[in-house]
Amino acid sequence: MAVQVTESTESTPAVPVGGADSTGTLGPAVALSCRECGQRFDLGPIFACQECFGPLEVAYDLPSGDPEGLRKRIEAGPNNIWRYAPLLPVPTDVADKPNLNPGFTKLVKADNLARELGVTGGLYVKDDSGNPTHSFKDRVVAIAVEAARAFGFTTLSCSSTGNLAGAVGAAARRAGFKSCVFIPHDLEAGKVVMAAVYGGDLVGIEGNYDDVNRFCSELIGDPLGEGWGFVNVNLRPYYGEGSKTLAYEICEQLGWRLPDQIVIPIASGSQLTKIDKGLKELIALGLVEDRPYKIFGAQAEGCSPVSAAFKAGHDVVRPQKPNTIAKSLAIGNPADGPYVLDIARRTGGAVEDVNDEQVVDAIKLLARTEGIFAETAGGVTVGVTKKLIEDGVLDPSLTTVVLNTGDGLKTLDAVAPTSGPTATIRPSLDAFRAAGLAG
Amino acid sequence: MAVQVTESTESTPAVPVGGADSTGTLGPAVALSCRECGQRFDLGPIFACQECFGPLEVAYDLPSGDPEGLRKRIEAGPNNIWRYAPLLPVPTDVADKPNLNPGFTKLVKADNLARELGVTGGLYVKDDSGNPTHSFKDRVVAIAVEAARAFGFTTLSCSSTGNLAGAVGAAARRAGFKSCVFIPHDLEAGKVVMAAVYGGDLVGIEGNYDDVNRFCSELIGDPLGEGWGFVNVNLRPYYGEGSKTLAYEICEQLGWRLPDQIVIPIASGSQLTKIDKGLKELIALGLVEDRPYKIFGAQAEGCSPVSAAFKAGHDVVRPQKPNTIAKSLAIGNPADGPYVLDIARRTGGAVEDVNDEQVVDAIKLLARTEGIFAETAGGVTVGVTKKLIEDGVLDPSLTTVVLNTGDGLKTLDAVAPTSGPTATIRPSLDAFRAAGLAG
Repeated sequence: MAVQVTESTESTPAVPVGGADSTGTLGPAVALSCRECGQRFDLGPIFACQECFGPLEVAYDLPSGDPEGLRKRIEAGPNNIWRYAPLLPVPTDVADKPNLNPGFTKLVKADNLARELGVTGGLYVKDDSGNPTHSFKDRVVAIAVEAARAFGFTTLSCSSTGNLAGAVGAAARRAGFKSCVFIPHDLEAGKVVMAAVYGGDLVGIEGNYDDVNRFCSELIGDPLGEGWGFVNVNLRPYYGEGSKTLAYEICEQLGWRLPDQIVIPIASGSQLTKIDKGLKELIALGLVEDRPYKIFGAQAEGCSPVSAAFKAGHDVVRPQKPNTIAKSLAIGNPADGPYVLDIARRTGGAVEDVNDEQVVDAIKLLARTEGIFAETAGGVTVGVTKKLIEDGVLDPSLTTVVLNTGDGLKTLDAVAPTSGPTATIRPSLDAFRAAGLAG
Repeated sequence: MAVQVTESTESTPAVPVGGADSTGTLGPAVALSCRECGQRFDLGPIFACQECFGPLEVAYDLPSGDPEGLRKRIEAGPNNIWRYAPLLPVPTDVADKPNLNPGFTKLVKADNLARELGVTGGLYVKDDSGNPTHSFKDRVVAIAVEAARAFGFTTLSCSSTGNLAGAVGAAARRAGFKSCVFIPHDLEAGKVVMAAVYGGDLVGIEGNYDDVNRFCSELIGDPLGEGWGFVNVNLRPYYGEGSKTLAYEICEQLGWRLPDQIVIPIASGSQLTKIDKGLKELIALGLVEDRPYKIFGAQAEGCSPVSAAFKAGHDVVRPQKPNTIAKSLAIGNPADGPYVLDIARRTGGAVEDVNDEQVVDAIKLLARTEGIFAETAGGVTVGVTKKLIEDGVLDPSLTTVVLNTGDGLKTLDAVAPTSGPTATIRPSLDAFRAAGLAG
């Protein structure tokens, strides 16, 4: 018996765009399914419904009927996302292939932060700065790598504002792909170094991130892009599934239990929708008890189109021009925004935003309570968690998980102006005594 | 039956310096033992032999007689260094205490790098950039935290050029200590931010690292420093033991097998000596087969006192004034230098050095083969490995492990001048075609 997580309709053969056809080696994945009209397509490097242009996602025949056996199989697996291979669009022998093997990052019981915020029901930080290139992007790229292998691509590519470029460059090297990634030409020097050090081609595009994206879409349709897998374009349906592993890990690390509340950052909104998908799969498979959970979305005020729509009671998301220090979340026209609104409302959650000052305060709050140095996106989720508790929206008596999806070392500028020495003194006991810091 | 890893002589009661006495809760640790004269002292916050001023190290009654039972106990433990609690100077319930829980980082099978270097016997990179603050320092600090708890200290401190300051700041926050760390006043801005963000006291000392160290030694002897645990001074014997976990993890991850060859960076030399100690313990406990292994030490040419002594056949190490980009290894007068020479000679290894250009090349070699972005210390070990193979000193047909002890994000400046875009173009297919990067 198999659980069909999306509705089954007849498949339409996929017309691969710029790549080879499916090789049928993606484990439990059986088709791509349009999230809008439900039309199904053969597995392949396509990303939009050929009927209605809706986004495609992976449909599975998941292994069901023996939850205890599946749980044991997972627990005996490697300490990375491949322990969940039976639930992912990857070959069954994926753990033997060269890959950065991200995931199974720490779920930190944040008792100090809980005390500060008044959370009594258990507060946890899922700390994805522990991934190989220190962000959750390693999860999604790892899945895209395996799809690229299955479809016979030889070059990995993406459009990026920095973090994804590094994740793709690193993953390509380990996995034996060529890579060519595209960034806006005027990125901060540090981000260019991080993206360039892995040694694949790195192309600066004279224009902004939208220009980079448009150029990549052109390239996919051109013979120049033949054999190229763009992780966040023509491999996007597979790539996105990597975020499900956050849901799996959180539940397993809680002792195969759903959290009551979970706070997730919103950029495109994809991560939030895939975490919801992952939680529903665990329930359908009998791996966790079926009980309610609430999903909360977190944005920066300077790029808060989903939060604004949530508060206004709208179903559609009005695009914004981003202006925030939380650059990894600065997508003004988030593709999955409407789905995020659905999920927040269906689960009884909410979408909220905090301003840049609150983001910085929250980064420092997490650092001084738990010793976790988060990137700005982590400041957004911690800041929103604090706000939602103060506003009585988030229930402090329930088990709550907050995501930190990246690393503070990549966004040092955010905290630099307010992080310096307590004192500077001559090397003498008298000078130290005068500074009043002892004891 | 218990294995005595250092010789047993009668203990002398320790006179604690600036802290409380031993509480007797440090697991299998039974005493401190002078590495020079063998004199034993009660466990306490002391670091130099009161007879001969030699360095003290922890002596154990290790659990022996049932290697299979011990191996199973370890394998059932947490995915961090506390799985080895039976072999460390920490309480048996250490995993339940608040701590950053570092360790069990990836041992990467570096097949791409092996091909480039001509290694056929299996090449592995132990990648400690996966630790909470992205360096091996989290291991040693984690042990010092537990010693500080046992001795009743309330403030954690250290002298640091940056990385250790961050590790101590972060660990103190999680574990519920106050912290006050000391750095030279003119550190790079980025390192100051990393050290300051955790919010404990950070004191810039007007002087160089030696001045900072001297000041800390004064502070330990003064009532001002009462209740303070300096992780790398009065807690040093415990702190150093954290490096043994690298040996344990490497062997466990190789399937409870000793590597044939291991390449370790040398700063003070402590890490190398403790890895050797850890390997010997595993042999004594019957956890690995007793067979020869070779230990190789790696230095930067601009700070190569141990390498120079090794090559000259000396037993003593002549201090140097450091001048290298590998700042985390830049200790001109390494305390454990003579012990490193002993170990390299006893095991049939060697000590070698590479210049700064070779360090940068090696960082980029590791990045483009394995997708691992190492700090300069990792460039030193990879560069030395390459050199030792080319010189016929390291045997490419044997299983070899190379340590990467830190993260490239912390030493971006080393690779920045030579890491940039391959091309910068207008967003058009024609411009891309002209750049000649496709396919």
